[in-house]
Amino acid sequence: MPEAASAPTAPRGTIGDSEFDRDTALSLREPGVYDIDLSAGWTIISAVNGGYLLAVLGRALADALPHGDPFTISAHYLTASQPGPAVVRTDVVRTGRTLSTGQASLLQYDDQGKEIERIRVLASYGDLGTLPDDVRTTAKPPAIPPMDHCFGPETASDIRLPSGGPAPVDGSSAIADRLMLRLDPSTLGWALGQPSGKGEMRAWFGLADGRDPDPLSLLLAVDALPPTAFEIGISGWVPTVELTVHVRCRPAPGPLRVSITTRNLAGGFLEEDAEVWDSADRLVAQSRQLARVRLG
Amino acid sequence: MPEAASAPTAPRGTIGDSEFDRDTALSLREPGVYDIDLSAGWTIISAVNGGYLLAVLGRALADALPHGDPFTISAHYLTASQPGPAVVRTDVVRTGRTLSTGQASLLQYDDQGKEIERIRVLASYGDLGTLPDDVRTTAKPPAIPPMDHCFGPETASDIRLPSGGPAPVDGSSAIADRLMLRLDPSTLGWALGQPSGKGEMRAWFGLADGRDPDPLSLLLAVDALPPTAFEIGISGWVPTVELTVHVRCRPAPGPLRVSITTRNLAGGFLEEDAEVWDSADRLVAQSRQLARVRLG
Repeated sequence: MPEAASAPTAPRGTIGDSEFDRDTALSLREPGVYDIDLSAGWTIISAVNGGYLLAVLGRALADALPHGDPFTISAHYLTASQPGPAVVRTDVVRTGRTLSTGQASLLQYDDQGKEIERIRVLASYGDLGTLPDDVRTTAKPPAIPPMDHCFGPETASDIRLPSGGPAPVDGSSAIADRLMLRLDPSTLGWALGQPSGKGEMRAWFGLADGRDPDPLSLLLAVDALPPTAFEIGISGWVPTVELTVHVRCRPAPGPLRVSITTRNLAGGFLEEDAEVWDSADRLVAQSRQLARVRLG
Repeated sequence: MPEAASAPTAPRGTIGDSEFDRDTALSLREPGVYDIDLSAGWTIISAVNGGYLLAVLGRALADALPHGDPFTISAHYLTASQPGPAVVRTDVVRTGRTLSTGQASLLQYDDQGKEIERIRVLASYGDLGTLPDDVRTTAKPPAIPPMDHCFGPETASDIRLPSGGPAPVDGSSAIADRLMLRLDPSTLGWALGQPSGKGEMRAWFGLADGRDPDPLSLLLAVDALPPTAFEIGISGWVPTVELTVHVRCRPAPGPLRVSITTRNLAGGFLEEDAEVWDSADRLVAQSRQLARVRLG
């Protein structure tokens, strides 16, 4: 049903039939090799969002491996991706009973049609549905105010954006139209010209068309908030060097809460630790990235 | 000086001439391919320590890449390594001005001499010496009592080890002889049969022969303490699925402090977050691993 699937037949997106699903859909060229047209709908200014790209790679590996859920996926970002044609080449490293490991590369083409590698990932996949229900956690959900006390992209861009920096919540970023992002006002000092100095960013997160979260959309969620660097008072670009995500549980339907913390900015690099909580108060994903600070 | 280098000519190990250096030394078979005899000196019961293996892979990549320091290295552990012959195959993914990215595999041989992959890693390397000195951190060094108030392997194994579990601080583990490990008594309840229930493990860490830390030995330091699972009351084996280390600063001479935290044990998996601090109170490495809980 190619036509029906791409038409907005329902007011709500559903898993398998939403902007996110259409824009991460791959076509099989040959075993393990997939073509995709990277959507311009997930860009921040001109850069394609790293979380969207990770979801594309994660989806290719879910197809190539005998297990369907990313348990841990590590991505090293090599060169900046552009909207347009790309190819994903996967390699099955090992298949096991409960876990399988794979490798994937996202490549695009230069003027001569030569492949340029954008991202390389290693990942171990399993089946989240088979895990026992035991949970012993000391982690607590982030204290984010109710959604109607948080700021959407329109409101935040009305306030004031830091000069010189990218504006990930500004309407000029296509991704803002695809996300339901409501930022905790206590981590929004940067938008008022008064960054807190603390490396924290928190938000309610969903997809704008209402599609519920699944393990693949969690790969987007961990990298979709404004950089914590804004709250440290840095307004430049913060490109990701490496991002590893652990998916710990299949998320319940409904909005997610994402909390990102940076504790150490040193030597021009910083880490961003993200936690994603679902509507059932389960910690569904943890991630850490190493990013470079490019002063703007 | 092959003979002189392997003889204990000095009472103290030095960087380049210590047990750790000799046991991670690789011989070049052909460009990008290295042979090594994995030492039995870094085993816990019969398993080769994952941090030692990561240091072996990290050293191969330091040779294969134009940059010498691991900035971020992600390892997926596939099958259990054994002491004995192994080969490391490296692949240069991208070389850049400030960062280079490489891939490496550690392989051993089955009865028919066929290669079996043990670990695959992706890593981005740079030069820690060129980073600016700026540090803006909210992270604080862990509060570990002075070294003479902490417990060495001998003392800890005298107390009592949990039944059924591996005994990483017991004298039966060869690695105990190679490490200077002094465990914070407040995270040693498990050895007294009274685990705290908190997923915390802290220790002073060094190499037994007094060799000072460097970026490669940090890859060992993040995975050398008893598992946090012991303090949660789990005495089984906790094999690593994936381990990512960020080296943030070249460590100052002297002992390191290592603090490991587990916040979420769920569905039979847990994360271990490690921080490593040097004698100059700099946060020199951060790591996170996903590990499986195998009930003992």
